[in-house]
Amino acid sequence: MTMIVGVIGAGQLARMMIPAAVELGIELRVLAEADGMSAGLAAVGVGDYRDRDAVLAFADTVDVLTFDHEHVPQEILRELVERGVAVHPGPDALLYAQDKLLMRQKLAELGLPVPDWARVENSEELAAFLADHGGHAVVKTPRGGYDGKGVRVVRAPHEADDWFAELGGEGGDALLVEELVDFSRELAQQVARRPSGEIVAWPLVETVQTDGVCSEVIAPAPHSSGRLADLARQIAVTVAEGIGVTGALAVELFQTTDGRLLVNELAMRPHNSGHWSMDGSTTGQFEQHLRAVLDLPLGSTATHEEWSVMVNILGGPAAGSLADRYATVMSRHPSVKVHNYGKAPRPGRKVGHVTAVGDDLDDASYQARAAAACFRD
Amino acid sequence: MTMIVGVIGAGQLARMMIPAAVELGIELRVLAEADGMSAGLAAVGVGDYRDRDAVLAFADTVDVLTFDHEHVPQEILRELVERGVAVHPGPDALLYAQDKLLMRQKLAELGLPVPDWARVENSEELAAFLADHGGHAVVKTPRGGYDGKGVRVVRAPHEADDWFAELGGEGGDALLVEELVDFSRELAQQVARRPSGEIVAWPLVETVQTDGVCSEVIAPAPHSSGRLADLARQIAVTVAEGIGVTGALAVELFQTTDGRLLVNELAMRPHNSGHWSMDGSTTGQFEQHLRAVLDLPLGSTATHEEWSVMVNILGGPAAGSLADRYATVMSRHPSVKVHNYGKAPRPGRKVGHVTAVGDDLDDASYQARAAAACFRD
Repeated sequence: MTMIVGVIGAGQLARMMIPAAVELGIELRVLAEADGMSAGLAAVGVGDYRDRDAVLAFADTVDVLTFDHEHVPQEILRELVERGVAVHPGPDALLYAQDKLLMRQKLAELGLPVPDWARVENSEELAAFLADHGGHAVVKTPRGGYDGKGVRVVRAPHEADDWFAELGGEGGDALLVEELVDFSRELAQQVARRPSGEIVAWPLVETVQTDGVCSEVIAPAPHSSGRLADLARQIAVTVAEGIGVTGALAVELFQTTDGRLLVNELAMRPHNSGHWSMDGSTTGQFEQHLRAVLDLPLGSTATHEEWSVMVNILGGPAAGSLADRYATVMSRHPSVKVHNYGKAPRPGRKVGHVTAVGDDLDDASYQARAAAACFRD
Repeated sequence: MTMIVGVIGAGQLARMMIPAAVELGIELRVLAEADGMSAGLAAVGVGDYRDRDAVLAFADTVDVLTFDHEHVPQEILRELVERGVAVHPGPDALLYAQDKLLMRQKLAELGLPVPDWARVENSEELAAFLADHGGHAVVKTPRGGYDGKGVRVVRAPHEADDWFAELGGEGGDALLVEELVDFSRELAQQVARRPSGEIVAWPLVETVQTDGVCSEVIAPAPHSSGRLADLARQIAVTVAEGIGVTGALAVELFQTTDGRLLVNELAMRPHNSGHWSMDGSTTGQFEQHLRAVLDLPLGSTATHEEWSVMVNILGGPAAGSLADRYATVMSRHPSVKVHNYGKAPRPGRKVGHVTAVGDDLDDASYQARAAAACFRD
């Protein structure tokens, strides 16, 4: 049996599947949107993930199809399934990662705690929601957003007029509006699930966002009770089983100032909140995702040390490459693990990350933050 | 700065450099002897490492040249250095990995403890050595041996006649004879050294040989005093500095029944005795080797857990592939790390390895041995 996993998309998530695939003797093929992308070391086909023929031809060359992102159109996904391709996660699950309105409806059906939300088609409906929620809210485009894009805090109904004006096309016919949650921090719970049902969870983690982009992750989330960790795990298991997710699933959560957990977003793929596991857990999320989509038994999610801290390298140096800073960062921080996505530095772009593990959270945080800072000007 | 490391040889050692290279954004190019070799995922040129023109052309495409094996001829290595190619380890060091007689002479010059040995050109000289050493000895061909090949225990002078008859060609003009060391166990000490001098050591490990092939490694070596560990590290540092090794160096040692350490063999590259570090240490040997040959600061050699046990997968299943056993091994041993070299199973061949780490040596040994056994019939 040669196992060939095809990945649609060739960004850093596909790239970080390569080491796990090499170690397990899994052949990885990537459908890239362009030459020279982050995962370019794997066998690459170039094609648009919205191009039915390109995706179908790519799928013919692999045993299992999975994803670096959630944007492959439903009609293509469903045709793949009809043709007998093993697609993980499948279209019935991906639907809820592709459309935040459907996701909110589904989570409510599953009885999971979510922020107050509504489907709004125009500024009058938005005005009504604002009036009920203290005059402010978060408006989201249901499709296509990521890393803070497609998300806007509004304090007046007209502040979403441009998005209402665009409705009716591929973006759908309504916006999602949610209460502005009074949260004390953001958390994420990652699990992996096999088609045959086995599911494992990593520890609950705390995520820190800067300008809407994940900047830092602490595993496990500090000051978390066993009750909180149990609740988060139960939420993620309910999501995974309730919508049939296969592969890695990250559930982003708000911890409210009054101690509740609310589901914010879902990611049905390896996720930035799980990068720490590559260096901090027996089984990293990329290996686990490959095992899960191949329906192989899942690996231990035990941690190496008490704490793992992951800090993103956002932007990178104004001139030159990340590697130009290796002499500095490696001499100052010999215990930090450096991950370089092979992408050109650009302001705000995720170009790599660093992870530090240890028994002392303050020291691990210092090491990871200071190492990441070496890559900035 | 894009860093391009060229590796001569495309076996599993080159293959296991790929994950480390991907994470650090290092471009890896491999000179393979044939298509379809273990490290075939990297950018591959096909050529014979004994072919001067092929090696020189390959070297022109990389920033640093290193090796999966030690067999590139000295005259090619020296021409590369003369042309300004960064070759690590360099020819002056590799000489002692290529010729065991020179190695014995050099270690003696460095004042390091070695078994009694002699250079023997004929069976009369061998007879004299046998007479002085209880009637038995180990005869080695100075060049080209590995994994027990080119090594023979003899109890009569005529038992090496076939090797004496072959002398005079590429194998040199003499054999190496050594006392049959009365050892209680075999150990290995691995270090890595940068061209600019920095050197780091992993813990001393115990290695177990089966039919002359490494079958198991325990890190750290059990029941080892601090004195023994210090001595082993000092020996390896003396070797590395004394002969100017750059990159990874493994020093194979005998621990004699009367408690001494004697140097057995040297390997100037990542080595089977260091595979455990991929899963058991902050910096695995393949990442460290790449950092060392690029003259980057070296990484921490701290261990994740108290014990790491590595067991080789020798041979593999009689029919089918290693992956056919994944469902079994992964369900029974979810904490074990599986490494598959992508090589066709064949009796006695090293086709992969597994590693287990933990606080309990008996349990880690059980997990690793039982997992490896799942790959056998």
